[in-house]
Amino acid sequence: MNVVKELSVCGGRLVKLSHNSTSTKTCMNVNVYLPKQYYAQDSSRSRPIPTVVYLSGLTCTPDNASEKAFWQFQADKYGFAMVFPDTSPRGDQVANDPEDSWDFGQGAGFYLNATQDPYAQHYQMYDYVHKELPQTLDAHFNKNAAAELDFLDNVAITGHSMGGYGAICGYLKGYAERRYKSCSAFAPIVNPSNVPWGQKAFKGYLGDERAQWQAYDPCALIKNVKRVGDDKVLIHVGDEDPFLEKHLRPELLLEAAKSTSWENYVQVKKVHGFDHSYYFVSTFVPEHAEFHAKNLGLI
Amino acid sequence: MNVVKELSVCGGRLVKLSHNSTSTKTCMNVNVYLPKQYYAQDSSRSRPIPTVVYLSGLTCTPDNASEKAFWQFQADKYGFAMVFPDTSPRGDQVANDPEDSWDFGQGAGFYLNATQDPYAQHYQMYDYVHKELPQTLDAHFNKNAAAELDFLDNVAITGHSMGGYGAICGYLKGYAERRYKSCSAFAPIVNPSNVPWGQKAFKGYLGDERAQWQAYDPCALIKNVKRVGDDKVLIHVGDEDPFLEKHLRPELLLEAAKSTSWENYVQVKKVHGFDHSYYFVSTFVPEHAEFHAKNLGLI
Repeated sequence: MNVVKELSVCGGRLVKLSHNSTSTKTCMNVNVYLPKQYYAQDSSRSRPIPTVVYLSGLTCTPDNASEKAFWQFQADKYGFAMVFPDTSPRGDQVANDPEDSWDFGQGAGFYLNATQDPYAQHYQMYDYVHKELPQTLDAHFNKNAAAELDFLDNVAITGHSMGGYGAICGYLKGYAERRYKSCSAFAPIVNPSNVPWGQKAFKGYLGDERAQWQAYDPCALIKNVKRVGDDKVLIHVGDEDPFLEKHLRPELLLEAAKSTSWENYVQVKKVHGFDHSYYFVSTFVPEHAEFHAKNLGLI
Repeated sequence: MNVVKELSVCGGRLVKLSHNSTSTKTCMNVNVYLPKQYYAQDSSRSRPIPTVVYLSGLTCTPDNASEKAFWQFQADKYGFAMVFPDTSPRGDQVANDPEDSWDFGQGAGFYLNATQDPYAQHYQMYDYVHKELPQTLDAHFNKNAAAELDFLDNVAITGHSMGGYGAICGYLKGYAERRYKSCSAFAPIVNPSNVPWGQKAFKGYLGDERAQWQAYDPCALIKNVKRVGDDKVLIHVGDEDPFLEKHLRPELLLEAAKSTSWENYVQVKKVHGFDHSYYFVSTFVPEHAEFHAKNLGLI
Protein backbone atom coordinates (compact mmCIF):
# COMPACT_ATOMS: atom_id res chain seq x y z
CA MET A 1 0.00 0.00 0.00
CA ASN A 2 1.57 3.26 -1.12
CA VAL A 3 0.57 6.65 0.21
CA VAL A 4 0.34 8.76 -2.95
CA LYS A 5 -0.73 11.93 -1.18
CA GLU A 6 -1.99 13.00 2.20
CA LEU A 7 -3.53 16.36 3.00
CA SER A 8 -5.58 18.16 5.59
CA VAL A 9 -9.32 18.29 4.95
CA CYS A 10 -11.82 19.58 7.49
CA GLY A 11 -10.58 18.43 10.89
CA GLY A 12 -8.83 15.29 9.64
CA ARG A 13 -6.68 14.00 6.81
CA LEU A 14 -7.46 12.60 3.37
CA VAL A 15 -5.06 9.82 2.44
CA LYS A 16 -4.77 8.86 -1.24
CA LEU A 17 -3.44 5.32 -1.54
CA SER A 18 -2.60 2.88 -4.30
CA HIS A 19 -1.87 -0.84 -4.07
CA ASN A 20 -1.52 -3.91 -6.25
CA SER A 21 -4.71 -5.89 -5.95
CA THR A 22 -4.66 -9.67 -6.09
CA SER A 23 -8.36 -9.64 -7.04
CA THR A 24 -8.12 -7.36 -10.05
CA LYS A 25 -4.43 -7.99 -10.83
CA THR A 26 -4.05 -4.24 -11.33
CA CYS A 27 -2.90 -1.27 -9.34
CA MET A 28 -5.97 0.16 -7.58
CA ASN A 29 -6.45 3.65 -6.16
CA VAL A 30 -8.45 4.31 -3.02
CA ASN A 31 -9.03 7.39 -0.86
CA VAL A 32 -9.45 7.15 2.91
CA TYR A 33 -10.60 10.00 5.11
CA LEU A 34 -9.47 9.81 8.71
CA PRO A 35 -11.66 12.03 10.90
CA LYS A 36 -10.46 14.39 13.56
CA GLN A 37 -11.21 11.78 16.23
CA TYR A 38 -8.46 9.60 14.77
CA TYR A 39 -5.91 12.26 15.70
CA ALA A 40 -7.41 13.17 19.06
CA GLN A 41 -5.54 10.67 21.26
CA ASP A 42 -8.78 9.99 23.04
CA SER A 43 -8.01 7.39 25.66
CA SER A 44 -11.68 7.20 26.55
CA ARG A 45 -12.50 5.75 23.15
CA SER A 46 -13.56 2.22 23.93
CA ARG A 47 -13.92 0.95 20.37
CA PRO A 48 -12.02 1.48 17.12
CA ILE A 49 -13.33 4.11 14.72
CA PRO A 50 -15.91 2.57 12.36
CA THR A 51 -15.86 3.15 8.62
CA VAL A 52 -18.38 4.07 5.96
CA VAL A 53 -17.61 2.74 2.47
CA TYR A 54 -18.86 4.94 -0.38
CA LEU A 55 -19.15 3.28 -3.81
CA SER A 56 -19.18 5.74 -6.69
CA GLY A 57 -21.15 5.73 -9.91
CA LEU A 58 -20.30 5.28 -13.59
CA THR A 59 -17.13 7.05 -14.81
CA CYS A 60 -16.01 8.08 -11.31
CA THR A 61 -12.63 7.69 -9.64
CA PRO A 62 -12.13 7.85 -5.85
CA ASP A 63 -11.74 11.63 -6.20
CA ASN A 64 -15.24 12.56 -7.36
CA ALA A 65 -17.01 11.81 -4.11
CA SER A 66 -14.00 12.91 -2.06
CA GLU A 67 -14.28 16.36 -3.64
CA LYS A 68 -18.00 16.75 -4.13
CA ALA A 69 -20.02 14.69 -1.65
CA PHE A 70 -18.80 16.38 1.53
CA TRP A 71 -18.76 13.35 3.75
CA GLN A 72 -15.76 14.79 5.58
CA PHE A 73 -17.70 17.25 7.72
CA GLN A 74 -20.06 14.46 8.70
CA ALA A 75 -17.23 12.04 9.43
CA ASP A 76 -15.83 14.61 11.86
CA LYS A 77 -19.24 15.23 13.37
CA TYR A 78 -19.90 11.59 14.26
CA GLY A 79 -16.43 10.07 14.29
CA PHE A 80 -16.29 7.59 11.42
CA ALA A 81 -13.68 7.09 8.71
CA MET A 82 -14.59 7.11 4.99
CA VAL A 83 -13.36 4.73 2.29
CA PHE A 84 -13.74 5.75 -1.37
CA PRO A 85 -12.79 2.84 -3.68
CA ASP A 86 -12.40 3.11 -7.44
CA THR A 87 -15.18 1.92 -9.78
CA SER A 88 -13.21 -0.64 -11.81
CA PRO A 89 -9.76 -1.95 -12.61
CA ARG A 90 -7.87 0.41 -14.93
CA GLY A 91 -4.90 0.32 -17.27
CA ASP A 92 -3.89 -0.50 -20.82
CA GLN A 93 -3.96 -4.22 -20.06
CA VAL A 94 -7.56 -4.09 -18.81
CA ALA A 95 -10.22 -5.03 -21.40
CA ASN A 96 -12.55 -2.16 -22.14
CA ASP A 97 -15.89 -1.78 -23.87
CA PRO A 98 -15.35 -2.44 -27.60
CA GLU A 99 -17.63 0.54 -28.21
CA ASP A 100 -15.59 2.63 -25.73
CA SER A 101 -18.75 3.77 -23.98
CA TRP A 102 -18.85 5.17 -20.45
CA ASP A 103 -21.37 2.68 -19.06
CA PHE A 104 -19.30 -0.50 -19.43
CA GLY A 105 -15.65 -1.41 -18.92
CA GLN A 106 -13.21 0.88 -17.20
CA GLY A 107 -15.01 3.20 -14.81
CA ALA A 108 -18.01 0.87 -14.86
CA GLY A 109 -17.08 -2.35 -13.06
CA PHE A 110 -20.48 -2.77 -11.41
CA TYR A 111 -18.89 -4.20 -8.25
CA LEU A 112 -19.25 -7.84 -9.38
CA ASN A 113 -16.94 -10.73 -10.26
CA ALA A 114 -16.98 -11.13 -14.04
CA THR A 115 -17.10 -14.67 -15.42
CA GLN A 116 -16.82 -13.87 -19.12
CA ASP A 117 -13.75 -13.38 -21.25
CA PRO A 118 -12.02 -11.00 -21.65
CA TYR A 119 -13.41 -9.35 -18.51
CA ALA A 120 -13.00 -12.15 -15.98
CA GLN A 121 -9.26 -11.62 -15.74
CA HIS A 122 -9.43 -8.19 -14.09
CA TYR A 123 -13.05 -7.30 -13.34
CA GLN A 124 -13.28 -8.91 -9.89
CA MET A 125 -14.67 -5.88 -8.12
CA TYR A 126 -16.95 -7.78 -5.76
CA ASP A 127 -14.05 -9.62 -4.18
CA TYR A 128 -11.94 -6.50 -4.30
CA VAL A 129 -14.35 -4.10 -2.58
CA HIS A 130 -15.99 -6.41 -0.08
CA LYS A 131 -13.09 -8.73 0.82
CA GLU A 132 -9.61 -7.75 -0.28
CA LEU A 133 -9.75 -3.99 0.23
CA PRO A 134 -10.95 -4.05 3.86
CA GLN A 135 -8.28 -6.62 4.74
CA THR A 136 -5.62 -4.57 2.99
CA LEU A 137 -6.69 -1.37 4.73
CA ASP A 138 -6.77 -3.13 8.07
CA ALA A 139 -3.24 -4.45 7.54
CA HIS A 140 -1.99 -1.01 6.47
CA PHE A 141 -3.57 1.18 9.11
CA ASN A 142 -3.60 -1.13 12.09
CA LYS A 143 -0.21 -2.78 11.73
CA ASN A 144 1.60 -0.98 14.51
CA ALA A 145 -0.95 -0.69 17.24
CA ALA A 146 -4.15 -1.93 18.71
CA ALA A 147 -6.72 -1.61 15.94
CA GLU A 148 -7.75 2.03 15.80
CA LEU A 149 -9.77 1.86 12.61
CA ASP A 150 -12.43 -0.76 12.03
CA PHE A 151 -12.56 -1.82 8.37
CA LEU A 152 -13.85 -5.32 9.08
CA ASP A 153 -16.62 -5.44 11.66
CA ASN A 154 -18.36 -2.18 12.40
CA VAL A 155 -18.75 -0.94 8.86
CA ALA A 156 -21.51 0.79 6.84
CA ILE A 157 -21.88 0.91 3.08
CA THR A 158 -23.45 3.46 0.76
CA GLY A 159 -23.09 4.64 -2.80
CA HIS A 160 -24.46 6.57 -5.75
CA SER A 161 -26.11 5.23 -8.90
CA MET A 162 -24.03 2.17 -9.98
CA GLY A 163 -22.41 2.51 -6.55
CA GLY A 164 -25.80 2.60 -4.85
CA TYR A 165 -26.49 -0.67 -6.60
CA GLY A 166 -23.11 -2.00 -5.45
CA ALA A 167 -23.85 -0.99 -1.86
CA ILE A 168 -27.24 -2.69 -1.68
CA CYS A 169 -25.93 -5.77 -3.50
CA GLY A 170 -22.92 -6.09 -1.17
CA TYR A 171 -25.09 -5.49 1.91
CA LEU A 172 -27.57 -8.20 1.00
CA LYS A 173 -25.00 -10.75 -0.20
CA GLY A 174 -23.01 -10.30 3.01
CA TYR A 175 -26.05 -10.05 5.26
CA ALA A 176 -25.82 -13.53 6.79
CA GLU A 177 -22.38 -12.79 8.21
CA ARG A 178 -23.31 -9.15 8.95
CA ARG A 179 -20.60 -7.89 6.63
CA TYR A 180 -22.12 -4.41 6.86
CA LYS A 181 -24.02 -2.98 9.80
CA SER A 182 -25.82 -0.35 7.77
CA CYS A 183 -26.76 0.36 4.15
CA SER A 184 -28.02 3.36 2.23
CA ALA A 185 -27.98 4.52 -1.37
CA PHE A 186 -28.33 7.65 -3.49
CA ALA A 187 -30.24 7.16 -6.76
CA PRO A 188 -29.29 3.46 -7.01
CA ILE A 189 -29.88 1.04 -9.85
CA VAL A 190 -31.97 -1.47 -7.88
CA ASN A 191 -32.94 -4.04 -10.50
CA PRO A 192 -30.05 -4.30 -12.98
CA SER A 193 -31.51 -7.40 -14.68
CA ASN A 194 -34.38 -5.31 -15.94
CA VAL A 195 -32.87 -1.96 -16.93
CA PRO A 196 -30.54 -1.08 -19.84
CA TRP A 197 -27.43 -0.10 -17.83
CA GLY A 198 -27.64 -3.27 -15.77
CA GLN A 199 -28.46 -5.57 -18.67
CA LYS A 200 -25.49 -4.33 -20.68
CA ALA A 201 -23.17 -4.85 -17.69
CA PHE A 202 -24.56 -8.23 -16.65
CA LYS A 203 -24.50 -9.56 -20.22
CA GLY A 204 -20.93 -8.42 -20.72
CA TYR A 205 -19.53 -9.48 -17.36
CA LEU A 206 -21.76 -12.48 -16.50
CA GLY A 207 -22.91 -13.76 -19.89
CA ASP A 208 -26.29 -14.33 -21.49
CA GLU A 209 -27.78 -16.68 -18.90
CA ARG A 210 -30.15 -14.57 -16.85
CA ALA A 211 -30.10 -17.15 -14.06
CA GLN A 212 -26.51 -16.07 -13.34
CA TRP A 213 -27.64 -12.49 -12.96
CA GLN A 214 -29.82 -13.21 -9.94
CA ALA A 215 -26.79 -13.60 -7.67
CA TYR A 216 -26.07 -9.88 -8.14
CA ASP A 217 -29.56 -8.40 -8.46
CA PRO A 218 -30.89 -6.70 -5.30
CA CYS A 219 -34.49 -7.39 -6.33
CA ALA A 220 -33.71 -11.12 -6.40
CA LEU A 221 -31.38 -11.13 -3.38
CA ILE A 222 -33.82 -9.36 -1.08
CA LYS A 223 -36.31 -12.22 -1.36
CA ASN A 224 -33.81 -14.70 0.06
CA VAL A 225 -32.30 -12.67 2.88
CA LYS A 226 -33.98 -12.71 6.28
CA ARG A 227 -33.92 -9.30 7.90
CA VAL A 228 -33.19 -9.03 11.65
CA GLY A 229 -33.59 -6.40 14.35
CA ASP A 230 -34.36 -2.87 13.19
CA ASP A 231 -32.29 -3.08 10.03
CA LYS A 232 -33.51 -1.01 7.16
CA VAL A 233 -32.21 0.41 3.91
CA LEU A 234 -32.37 4.17 3.29
CA ILE A 235 -32.63 5.41 -0.31
CA HIS A 236 -32.94 8.92 -1.73
CA VAL A 237 -33.69 9.75 -5.34
CA GLY A 238 -34.49 13.05 -7.06
CA ASP A 239 -37.70 13.42 -9.02
CA GLU A 240 -35.82 15.31 -11.75
CA ASP A 241 -33.18 12.59 -12.09
CA PRO A 242 -32.94 11.98 -15.84
CA PHE A 243 -32.17 8.28 -15.26
CA LEU A 244 -35.03 7.66 -12.85
CA GLU A 245 -37.54 5.97 -15.17
CA LYS A 246 -35.15 4.12 -17.43
CA HIS A 247 -32.27 2.92 -15.25
CA LEU A 248 -32.99 3.41 -11.54
CA ARG A 249 -36.65 2.50 -10.93
CA PRO A 250 -36.44 2.34 -7.11
CA GLU A 251 -40.10 1.28 -6.90
CA LEU A 252 -39.03 -2.15 -8.18
CA LEU A 253 -37.09 -2.76 -4.96
CA LEU A 254 -40.16 -1.83 -2.91
CA GLU A 255 -42.20 -4.29 -4.96
CA ALA A 256 -39.59 -7.01 -4.56
CA ALA A 257 -39.57 -6.43 -0.80
CA LYS A 258 -43.32 -6.91 -0.50
CA SER A 259 -44.33 -9.93 1.57
CA THR A 260 -40.72 -10.40 2.67
CA SER A 261 -39.10 -9.48 5.96
CA TRP A 262 -37.96 -6.25 4.27
CA GLU A 263 -41.44 -4.94 3.57
CA ASN A 264 -41.63 -1.48 5.17
CA TYR A 265 -37.90 -1.66 5.89
CA VAL A 266 -36.76 -0.28 2.56
CA GLN A 267 -37.33 3.45 2.64
CA VAL A 268 -37.32 5.32 -0.68
CA LYS A 269 -37.46 9.09 -0.31
CA LYS A 270 -38.22 10.85 -3.58
CA VAL A 271 -37.07 14.45 -3.24
CA HIS A 272 -38.38 17.31 -5.31
CA GLY A 273 -36.32 19.19 -7.87
CA PHE A 274 -33.12 17.17 -7.44
CA ASP A 275 -31.26 15.57 -10.33
CA HIS A 276 -28.58 12.84 -10.49
CA SER A 277 -25.60 15.07 -9.69
CA TYR A 278 -23.43 15.49 -6.64
CA TYR A 279 -25.56 18.51 -5.78
CA PHE A 280 -28.20 15.92 -4.95
CA VAL A 281 -25.82 13.54 -3.18
CA SER A 282 -24.15 16.20 -1.04
CA THR A 283 -27.49 17.64 0.04
CA PHE A 284 -28.58 14.34 1.58
CA VAL A 285 -25.21 13.14 2.87
CA PRO A 286 -25.97 14.63 6.32
CA GLU A 287 -29.15 12.53 6.61
CA HIS A 288 -27.34 9.38 5.49
CA ALA A 289 -24.45 10.12 7.84
CA GLU A 290 -26.82 10.33 10.80
CA PHE A 291 -28.51 7.08 9.70
CA HIS A 292 -25.18 5.25 9.55
CA ALA A 293 -23.88 6.84 12.75
CA LYS A 294 -26.87 5.42 14.60
CA ASN A 295 -26.40 1.97 13.11
CA LEU A 296 -22.69 2.02 13.90
CA GLY A 297 -23.39 2.85 17.53
CA LEU A 298 -21.92 6.34 17.37
CA ILE A 299 -25.08 8.12 18.55
CA MET B 1 -30.61 36.78 -19.09
CA ASN B 2 -31.37 33.17 -19.94
CA VAL B 3 -31.96 30.47 -17.36
CA VAL B 4 -29.90 27.56 -18.68
CA LYS B 5 -30.72 25.22 -15.84
CA GLU B 6 -32.25 25.36 -12.40
CA LEU B 7 -32.10 22.61 -9.81
CA SER B 8 -32.61 21.91 -6.14
CA VAL B 9 -29.50 22.06 -3.98
CA CYS B 10 -29.60 21.89 -0.18
CA GLY B 11 -32.67 23.84 0.89
CA GLY B 12 -32.69 26.22 -2.06
CA ARG B 13 -32.14 26.35 -5.81
CA LEU B 14 -29.06 26.76 -7.98
CA VAL B 15 -29.81 28.84 -11.09
CA LYS B 16 -27.38 28.62 -14.00
CA LEU B 17 -27.70 31.70 -16.17
CA SER B 18 -26.13 33.08 -19.32
CA HIS B 19 -26.34 36.58 -20.76
CA ASN B 20 -24.75 38.81 -23.37
CA SER B 21 -22.40 41.15 -21.58
CA THR B 22 -21.90 44.69 -22.83
CA SER B 23 -18.60 44.83 -20.92
CA THR B 24 -16.98 41.75 -22.42
CA LYS B 25 -19.02 41.66 -25.64
CA THR B 26 -19.40 37.92 -25.13
CA CYS B 27 -21.97 35.55 -23.71
CA MET B 28 -21.14 35.10 -20.01
CA ASN B 29 -22.19 32.29 -17.70
CA VAL B 30 -22.97 32.84 -14.05
CA ASN B 31 -24.41 30.64 -11.29
CA VAL B 32 -26.64 32.02 -8.56
CA TYR B 33 -27.67 30.11 -5.44
CA LEU B 34 -30.92 31.22 -3.87
CA PRO B 35 -31.10 30.04 -0.26
CA LYS B 36 -34.09 28.45 1.39
CA GLN B 37 -35.03 31.81 2.91
CA TYR B 38 -35.77 33.10 -0.59
CA TYR B 39 -38.56 30.56 -0.91
CA ALA B 40 -39.87 30.87 2.61
CA GLN B 41 -42.37 33.69 2.09
CA ASP B 42 -41.19 35.25 5.29
CA SER B 43 -43.22 38.39 5.76
CA SER B 44 -41.15 39.29 8.81
CA ARG B 45 -38.06 39.76 6.65
CA SER B 46 -37.41 43.45 6.82
CA ARG B 47 -34.57 43.63 4.30
CA PRO B 48 -33.81 41.95 1.00
CA ILE B 49 -31.55 38.89 1.07
CA PRO B 50 -27.89 39.97 0.80
CA THR B 51 -25.44 38.29 -1.55
CA VAL B 52 -21.91 36.95 -1.33
CA VAL B 53 -19.92 37.08 -4.58
CA TYR B 54 -17.34 34.29 -4.97
CA LEU B 55 -14.60 34.88 -7.55
CA SER B 56 -12.91 31.69 -8.74
CA GLY B 57 -9.29 30.98 -9.54
CA LEU B 58 -7.34 30.21 -12.70
CA THR B 59 -9.02 27.80 -15.16
CA CYS B 60 -12.33 27.73 -13.28
CA THR B 61 -15.85 28.17 -14.60
CA PRO B 62 -18.81 29.09 -12.37
CA ASP B 63 -19.33 25.36 -11.76
CA ASN B 64 -16.12 24.55 -9.86
CA ALA B 65 -16.97 26.45 -6.70
CA SER B 66 -20.67 25.65 -7.05
CA GLU B 67 -19.81 21.96 -6.90
CA LYS B 68 -16.83 21.89 -4.57
CA ALA B 69 -16.79 24.84 -2.17
CA PHE B 70 -20.02 24.01 -0.45
CA TRP B 71 -21.27 27.51 0.20
CA GLN B 72 -24.86 26.34 -0.18
CA PHE B 73 -25.27 24.91 3.33
CA GLN B 74 -23.85 28.12 4.75
CA ALA B 75 -26.09 30.27 2.57
CA ASP B 76 -29.08 28.39 3.99
CA LYS B 77 -27.73 28.69 7.52
CA TYR B 78 -27.41 32.47 7.47
CA GLY B 79 -29.75 33.50 4.68
CA PHE B 80 -27.59 34.96 1.93
CA ALA B 81 -27.54 34.32 -1.81
CA MET B 82 -24.36 33.32 -3.67
CA VAL B 83 -23.11 34.62 -7.01
CA PHE B 84 -20.46 32.60 -8.89
CA PRO B 85 -19.21 34.57 -11.95
CA ASP B 86 -16.96 33.14 -14.66
CA THR B 87 -13.23 33.89 -14.66
CA SER B 88 -12.94 35.49 -18.12
CA PRO B 89 -14.71 36.07 -21.41
CA ARG B 90 -14.76 32.92 -23.54
CA GLY B 91 -15.29 31.95 -27.17
CA ASP B 92 -13.49 31.54 -30.47
CA GLN B 93 -13.51 35.31 -31.01
CA VAL B 94 -11.79 35.99 -27.67
CA ALA B 95 -8.02 36.42 -27.86
CA ASN B 96 -6.15 33.81 -25.90
CA ASP B 97 -2.61 33.33 -24.64
CA PRO B 98 -0.37 32.79 -27.70
CA GLU B 99 1.31 30.07 -25.66
CA ASP B 100 -2.08 28.57 -24.81
CA SER B 101 -1.15 28.36 -21.13
CA TRP B 102 -3.68 28.11 -18.30
CA ASP B 103 -2.50 31.19 -16.39
CA PHE B 104 -3.35 33.85 -18.97
CA GLY B 105 -6.21 34.41 -21.41
CA GLN B 106 -9.43 32.44 -21.28
CA GLY B 107 -10.06 31.18 -17.74
CA ALA B 108 -7.58 33.75 -16.43
CA GLY B 109 -9.08 37.21 -16.82
CA PHE B 110 -7.71 38.51 -13.51
CA TYR B 111 -10.84 40.61 -12.92
CA LEU B 112 -9.38 43.76 -14.49
CA ASN B 113 -10.08 45.97 -17.52
CA ALA B 114 -7.43 45.23 -20.15
CA THR B 115 -5.96 48.17 -22.02
CA GLN B 116 -3.71 46.29 -24.44
CA ASP B 117 -4.55 44.81 -27.82
CA PRO B 118 -5.81 42.24 -28.56
CA TYR B 119 -7.15 41.77 -25.02
CA ALA B 120 -8.83 45.13 -24.45
CA GLN B 121 -11.76 44.23 -26.69
CA HIS B 122 -13.18 41.50 -24.46
CA TYR B 123 -11.19 41.33 -21.21
CA GLN B 124 -13.18 43.90 -19.24
CA MET B 125 -13.76 41.73 -16.22
CA TYR B 126 -13.51 44.51 -13.64
CA ASP B 127 -16.45 46.36 -15.12
CA TYR B 128 -18.27 43.11 -15.72
CA VAL B 129 -17.99 41.65 -12.22
CA HIS B 130 -18.25 44.77 -10.11
CA LYS B 131 -20.65 46.89 -12.17
CA GLU B 132 -22.54 45.21 -15.00
CA LEU B 133 -23.25 41.81 -13.45
CA PRO B 134 -24.86 43.10 -10.22
CA GLN B 135 -27.05 45.48 -12.23
CA THR B 136 -28.03 42.68 -14.61
CA LEU B 137 -28.85 40.29 -11.77
CA ASP B 138 -30.85 42.97 -10.00
CA ALA B 139 -32.86 43.63 -13.15
CA HIS B 140 -33.46 39.92 -13.71
CA PHE B 141 -34.38 38.80 -10.22
CA ASN B 142 -36.12 41.89 -8.90
CA LYS B 143 -38.09 42.94 -11.95
CA ASN B 144 -41.53 41.85 -10.79
CA ALA B 145 -41.58 42.70 -7.13
CA ALA B 146 -40.15 44.70 -4.35
CA ALA B 147 -36.46 43.87 -4.32
CA GLU B 148 -36.05 40.50 -2.63
CA LEU B 149 -32.39 39.95 -3.44
CA ASP B 150 -29.76 42.58 -2.81
CA PHE B 151 -27.03 42.53 -5.46
CA LEU B 152 -26.17 46.20 -5.14
CA ASP B 153 -25.92 47.44 -1.57
CA ASN B 154 -25.57 44.77 1.10
CA VAL B 155 -23.01 42.59 -0.65
CA ALA B 156 -19.88 40.70 0.41
CA ILE B 157 -17.05 39.49 -1.80
CA THR B 158 -14.64 36.60 -1.52
CA GLY B 159 -12.62 34.37 -3.80
CA HIS B 160 -9.86 31.83 -4.25
CA SER B 161 -6.34 32.37 -5.62
CA MET B 162 -6.73 34.68 -8.66
CA GLY B 163 -10.28 35.18 -7.39
CA GLY B 164 -9.02 36.01 -3.92
CA TYR B 165 -6.92 38.68 -5.58
CA GLY B 166 -10.00 39.87 -7.51
CA ALA B 167 -12.02 40.08 -4.32
CA ILE B 168 -9.48 42.15 -2.38
CA CYS B 169 -8.84 44.37 -5.42
CA GLY B 170 -12.54 45.00 -5.99
CA TYR B 171 -13.16 45.60 -2.30
CA LEU B 172 -10.41 48.21 -2.00
CA LYS B 173 -11.15 49.95 -5.33
CA GLY B 174 -14.82 50.23 -4.42
CA TYR B 175 -14.20 51.05 -0.76
CA ALA B 176 -14.97 54.77 -0.92
CA GLU B 177 -18.53 54.07 -2.14
CA ARG B 178 -18.81 50.95 0.09
CA ARG B 179 -19.35 48.75 -2.93
CA TYR B 180 -18.83 45.70 -0.70
CA LYS B 181 -19.63 45.45 2.98
CA SER B 182 -17.24 42.57 3.64
CA CYS B 183 -14.19 40.94 2.09
CA SER B 184 -12.35 37.68 2.56
CA ALA B 185 -10.07 35.50 0.46
CA PHE B 186 -8.74 31.96 0.22
CA ALA B 187 -5.07 31.68 -0.79
CA PRO B 188 -5.13 34.99 -2.71
CA ILE B 189 -2.47 36.52 -4.92
CA VAL B 190 -2.00 39.74 -2.92
CA ASN B 191 0.79 41.51 -4.77
CA PRO B 192 0.44 40.69 -8.48
CA SER B 193 3.03 43.28 -9.53
CA ASN B 194 5.72 41.28 -7.77
CA VAL B 195 4.89 37.62 -8.49
CA PRO B 196 5.08 35.65 -11.76
CA TRP B 197 1.34 34.93 -12.25
CA GLY B 198 0.49 38.57 -11.68
CA GLN B 199 3.34 39.98 -13.72
CA LYS B 200 2.42 37.87 -16.72
CA ALA B 201 -1.21 38.96 -16.47
CA PHE B 202 -0.52 42.64 -15.83
CA LYS B 203 2.03 42.83 -18.63
CA GLY B 204 -0.35 41.17 -21.09
CA TYR B 205 -3.52 42.98 -20.11
CA LEU B 206 -2.14 46.35 -18.91
CA GLY B 207 1.18 46.73 -20.76
CA ASP B 208 4.77 47.18 -19.69
CA GLU B 209 4.36 50.36 -17.63
CA ARG B 210 4.42 49.26 -14.03
CA ALA B 211 2.78 52.51 -12.97
CA GLN B 212 -0.41 51.29 -14.64
CA TRP B 213 -0.32 48.13 -12.53
CA GLN B 214 -0.73 49.98 -9.26
CA ALA B 215 -4.40 50.64 -9.93
CA TYR B 216 -5.05 46.91 -9.62
CA ASP B 217 -2.52 45.84 -7.02
CA PRO B 218 -3.91 45.33 -3.49
CA CYS B 219 -0.53 46.12 -1.94
CA ALA B 220 -0.60 49.53 -3.63
CA LEU B 221 -4.33 50.16 -3.20
CA ILE B 222 -4.37 49.46 0.53
CA LYS B 223 -2.02 52.39 1.17
CA ASN B 224 -4.50 54.85 -0.32
CA VAL B 225 -7.76 53.59 1.15
CA LYS B 226 -8.85 54.83 4.56
CA ARG B 227 -10.43 52.08 6.62
CA VAL B 228 -13.57 52.86 8.68
CA GLY B 229 -15.43 51.21 11.55
CA ASP B 230 -14.51 47.63 12.34
CA ASP B 231 -13.80 46.63 8.77
CA LYS B 232 -11.22 43.96 8.30
CA VAL B 233 -10.11 41.49 5.66
CA LEU B 234 -10.03 37.75 6.48
CA ILE B 235 -7.54 35.55 4.62
CA HIS B 236 -6.76 31.83 4.92
CA VAL B 237 -3.87 30.07 3.26
CA GLY B 238 -2.53 26.53 3.63
CA ASP B 239 1.09 26.00 4.65
CA GLU B 240 1.35 23.18 2.08
CA ASP B 241 0.02 25.33 -0.74
CA PRO B 242 2.48 24.76 -3.59
CA PHE B 243 1.98 28.34 -4.82
CA LEU B 244 2.48 29.99 -1.44
CA GLU B 245 6.06 31.22 -1.77
CA LYS B 246 6.12 32.02 -5.46
CA HIS B 247 2.70 33.44 -6.33
CA LEU B 248 0.62 34.16 -3.21
CA ARG B 249 2.96 35.66 -0.58
CA PRO B 250 0.23 36.92 1.78
CA GLU B 251 2.84 38.43 4.10
CA LEU B 252 3.36 41.17 1.50
CA LEU B 253 -0.15 42.47 2.13
CA LEU B 254 0.54 42.57 5.86
CA GLU B 255 3.71 44.54 5.16
CA ALA B 256 1.88 46.93 2.85
CA ALA B 257 -0.77 47.48 5.50
CA LYS B 258 1.79 48.48 8.11
CA SER B 259 1.49 52.07 9.29
CA THR B 260 -1.81 52.41 7.43
CA SER B 261 -5.36 52.31 8.79
CA TRP B 262 -5.41 48.62 7.84
CA GLU B 263 -2.58 47.59 10.16
CA ASN B 264 -3.95 44.82 12.39
CA TYR B 265 -7.12 44.73 10.26
CA VAL B 266 -5.83 42.30 7.66
CA GLN B 267 -5.93 38.85 9.21
CA VAL B 268 -3.89 36.09 7.54
CA LYS B 269 -4.52 32.65 9.00
CA LYS B 270 -1.94 30.11 7.87
CA VAL B 271 -3.43 26.65 8.36
CA HIS B 272 -1.42 23.48 8.72
CA GLY B 273 -1.40 20.71 6.16
CA PHE B 274 -3.74 22.34 3.68
CA ASP B 275 -2.92 22.78 -0.01
CA HIS B 276 -4.40 24.98 -2.75
CA SER B 277 -7.38 22.74 -3.59
CA TYR B 278 -11.08 22.99 -2.91
CA TYR B 279 -10.49 20.64 0.02
CA PHE B 280 -8.85 23.67 1.60
CA VAL B 281 -11.49 26.15 0.45
CA SER B 282 -14.47 24.06 1.54
CA THR B 283 -12.97 23.43 4.97
CA PHE B 284 -12.84 27.15 5.76
CA VAL B 285 -16.00 28.26 3.97
CA PRO B 286 -17.99 27.98 7.24
CA GLU B 287 -15.64 30.44 8.96
CA HIS B 288 -15.80 32.86 6.04
CA ALA B 289 -19.57 32.50 5.86
CA GLU B 290 -19.91 33.48 9.51
CA PHE B 291 -17.55 36.43 8.97
CA HIS B 292 -19.63 37.72 6.06
CA ALA B 293 -22.95 37.01 7.78
CA LYS B 294 -21.88 39.28 10.64
CA ASN B 295 -20.77 42.03 8.29
CA LEU B 296 -23.99 41.77 6.29
CA GLY B 297 -26.07 42.16 9.45
CA LEU B 298 -27.44 38.61 9.37
CA ILE B 299 -26.20 37.67 12.84
